[in-house]
Amino acid sequence: MANEPLFPKNPDETQTSIMEATFDALAEYGYSDLTINRVSQHFDKSEGIIFYHYDGKDELLLDLLNYLLERVENGAIQLSNEASPKTHLRTLLDKTLPSADETQERDYEKVLIELRTQAIHDEDYRECFNRSHQGFRETVREIIEAGIETGDFNEVDPELVADFVMTLVSGEIFDRLTMNSNRMVRSELDSYIETRLLADQPN
Amino acid sequence: MANEPLFPKNPDETQTSIMEATFDALAEYGYSDLTINRVSQHFDKSEGIIFYHYDGKDELLLDLLNYLLERVENGAIQLSNEASPKTHLRTLLDKTLPSADETQERDYEKVLIELRTQAIHDEDYRECFNRSHQGFRETVREIIEAGIETGDFNEVDPELVADFVMTLVSGEIFDRLTMNSNRMVRSELDSYIETRLLADQPN
Repeated sequence: MANEPLFPKNPDETQTSIMEATFDALAEYGYSDLTINRVSQHFDKSEGIIFYHYDGKDELLLDLLNYLLERVENGAIQLSNEASPKTHLRTLLDKTLPSADETQERDYEKVLIELRTQAIHDEDYRECFNRSHQGFRETVREIIEAGIETGDFNEVDPELVADFVMTLVSGEIFDRLTMNSNRMVRSELDSYIETRLLADQPN
Repeated sequence: MANEPLFPKNPDETQTSIMEATFDALAEYGYSDLTINRVSQHFDKSEGIIFYHYDGKDELLLDLLNYLLERVENGAIQLSNEASPKTHLRTLLDKTLPSADETQERDYEKVLIELRTQAIHDEDYRECFNRSHQGFRETVREIIEAGIETGDFNEVDPELVADFVMTLVSGEIFDRLTMNSNRMVRSELDSYIETRLLADQPN
């Protein structure tokens, strides 16, 4: 995901420290074994301060989810308008698909998958993910649409291609976290882009 | 998924009844809110019988996972050798990708996603999913390989294509359960098959 650290090095706000402690505890224990007490073990102030700010685990986790998703949205790529749609799309995929095994990156995905599973049963979680997903999907759709307009891409359906790419990203993150797999879909995704979006192009 | 019901109509074994009760309770409450007591509410015998067979929630859930995955493996498609690789692949995808909104099918996927999230933290779950995933992936890989051999498919890398298809299936199931989305990746997946596997073919 984004290249900056998820949390500032010396957070000056208690709120941010609580977010970081919650993140670390969730990465360590998973949703169902998470307790406020375990969060407080990653927190350098007293457990009481967490309870002062939050009524319980779910309020705390929803806040963490919003914090994380906001960070992703702010870290979204800003390319100059001169970049071609093809470069734009590739840069977005480079940034999005899991690659290196960097610990915070894995933890970030782990935590997000834990929280997303809650969306099966909880409408509040579901809404957060919908909003974030729609934003990202819209970026992909716009790139495809721009590429068709400039003649860089074939005349595909931008909606369908955007959904297809989003599905691959979800599946790759989910599979890598829940199975022992070292596979990389990126190479075949590039072939898809090549044959489906670029094949009939003159260059 | 498979077309037969997940559980026999009149299970003559206590074990099967426990599996069904666990499945129903898990679909209703999710992993983290599941208790043996909630399972017993879906069970027509006493809670004591569940405790007689199982030490606790996780032993019970691992057994359910094995039961479900075994059922999927047994329900795997058996096509006659006369079917073309293209038909074979399409039939497999018809059977695998979520389509209709049938309740038991959705519950089945819901339950499997809940259990898979546990694999992030639990090696026992991870092993079950690895085994099942490898079996399914192997089927896809063999179909692609057969298609290349008969000249039905282009000379792609069967390993990469199998991973790509598996990733799409995972992503589609996960996204549909955790977001409000009515999208269908199947249509664009067919276009991928068309342009990537079949495009250079004479017919």
